[in-house]
Amino acid sequence: MKCNVIISPFSVDELYFTGKTTVVIDVLRASNTIITALKNGAKEIVPVASVEFAVKVSGGMFGGQTLLGGERNTKKIDGFALGNSPLEYSEKAISGKSIVFFTTNGSRAIVKAKFSENLFVCSFSNIAAVAKHLAKLKRDFEIVCAGRNNSFSLEDSICAGKLVLYMQELDENLELSDSSNACLALNKILGKNILDMLKNSDHGKLLIENGFGEDLILCSKLNNTKVVPFFRENVVKLMPGNNT
Amino acid sequence: MKCNVIISPFSVDELYFTGKTTVVIDVLRASNTIITALKNGAKEIVPVASVEFAVKVSGGMFGGQTLLGGERNTKKIDGFALGNSPLEYSEKAISGKSIVFFTTNGSRAIVKAKFSENLFVCSFSNIAAVAKHLAKLKRDFEIVCAGRNNSFSLEDSICAGKLVLYMQELDENLELSDSSNACLALNKILGKNILDMLKNSDHGKLLIENGFGEDLILCSKLNNTKVVPFFRENVVKLMPGNNT
Repeated sequence: MKCNVIISPFSVDELYFTGKTTVVIDVLRASNTIITALKNGAKEIVPVASVEFAVKVSGGMFGGQTLLGGERNTKKIDGFALGNSPLEYSEKAISGKSIVFFTTNGSRAIVKAKFSENLFVCSFSNIAAVAKHLAKLKRDFEIVCAGRNNSFSLEDSICAGKLVLYMQELDENLELSDSSNACLALNKILGKNILDMLKNSDHGKLLIENGFGEDLILCSKLNNTKVVPFFRENVVKLMPGNNT
Repeated sequence: MKCNVIISPFSVDELYFTGKTTVVIDVLRASNTIITALKNGAKEIVPVASVEFAVKVSGGMFGGQTLLGGERNTKKIDGFALGNSPLEYSEKAISGKSIVFFTTNGSRAIVKAKFSENLFVCSFSNIAAVAKHLAKLKRDFEIVCAGRNNSFSLEDSICAGKLVLYMQELDENLELSDSSNACLALNKILGKNILDMLKNSDHGKLLIENGFGEDLILCSKLNNTKVVPFFRENVVKLMPGNNT
């Protein structure tokens, strides 16, 4: 198996992903929000690439059982029922619902990779579960860091590096691209204490400033769930047979 | 002073650089080709963002004393006098000439950053000299990795990390962005033996396959020149007062 990391999804176009196996990572916070929503019984997440499209889609296409969720530059969007804090996605709030979801980086990265044959969503909390699925598939794979406003994200790159490390343990012949090797090195040197790393990251500092410090604790947890969000036909659902 | 690294120039637009102090790095091989050309007496380098524009510009705007140089995907372009191997830029070949220069990554990154107030070109061979100039300026600065086809370049990121390290020694209060910290970590773990790193990099392997193994040796040399290429009014020249 071969592994490549895309440091920012905006360096490739949509067709790049055609037929590929792809893992999208947005540590702060879209990955964890999606995982939490599915864990708490959301029917599905509909990731969209623009707020305008979110509003359009939510107008009834999904039988009235839709909620708008997400953020723009860390803040909840006017008229949206939910922001991008995993803490908001309680069972009471979202069980049984379709959630139309826009975030500055994460949902756009998923939409960008939509032509993938297999498309998973990963964060620190489900790395082992995602790695297990990838190893079963035995396919070359791309890890996409959602990044920050089209640029580098330290936390996404370190999470990518940790996934590469897990995959090396599951496949001793795993072939690594330069970017995979780089993320592996970043995880080794900067990924020992995930919470500290998040607190000291540019994005983490901004979230703390905006009152989302608790989200950092939640997003720093390693392997506390087996939920593997899976994208197919424009929606993210639990992997079939996925045991939460 | 604050330092930021742009992992790929295509994640920002031209106006981002307005008034900034910027260092462009393209280790394999545009940075070293430009340095070698200036060292060997080229009058100036005219970086361009497309082959078509290179051909147009070379048609006489610079008094007939122009040469076309560069590459597309490591190979010399039909009709160009010179490729992108520093070895071709001998005194005999280029002394006194204006060189219109197109490369897949490097020249495009320089053109992208053209609105910078100060714009330098850096490789391993002139890091100490570039650091000295930056320290004198006492300005926040951006390091731009030219990257590979809009994506991550290991060698550019490690060179960026080494420049950050040198700058930390010259300014103990240097403030680092996440990407600067990441490049610093990459240099620490993967930048010990530059030639080995280049030989094992995706781009290095491709160059070896195409017969450019000797270029890797040349591009791996650390601090063997004081040449600091400086971009102003659409051309790259030696820094005023620069002692080669």
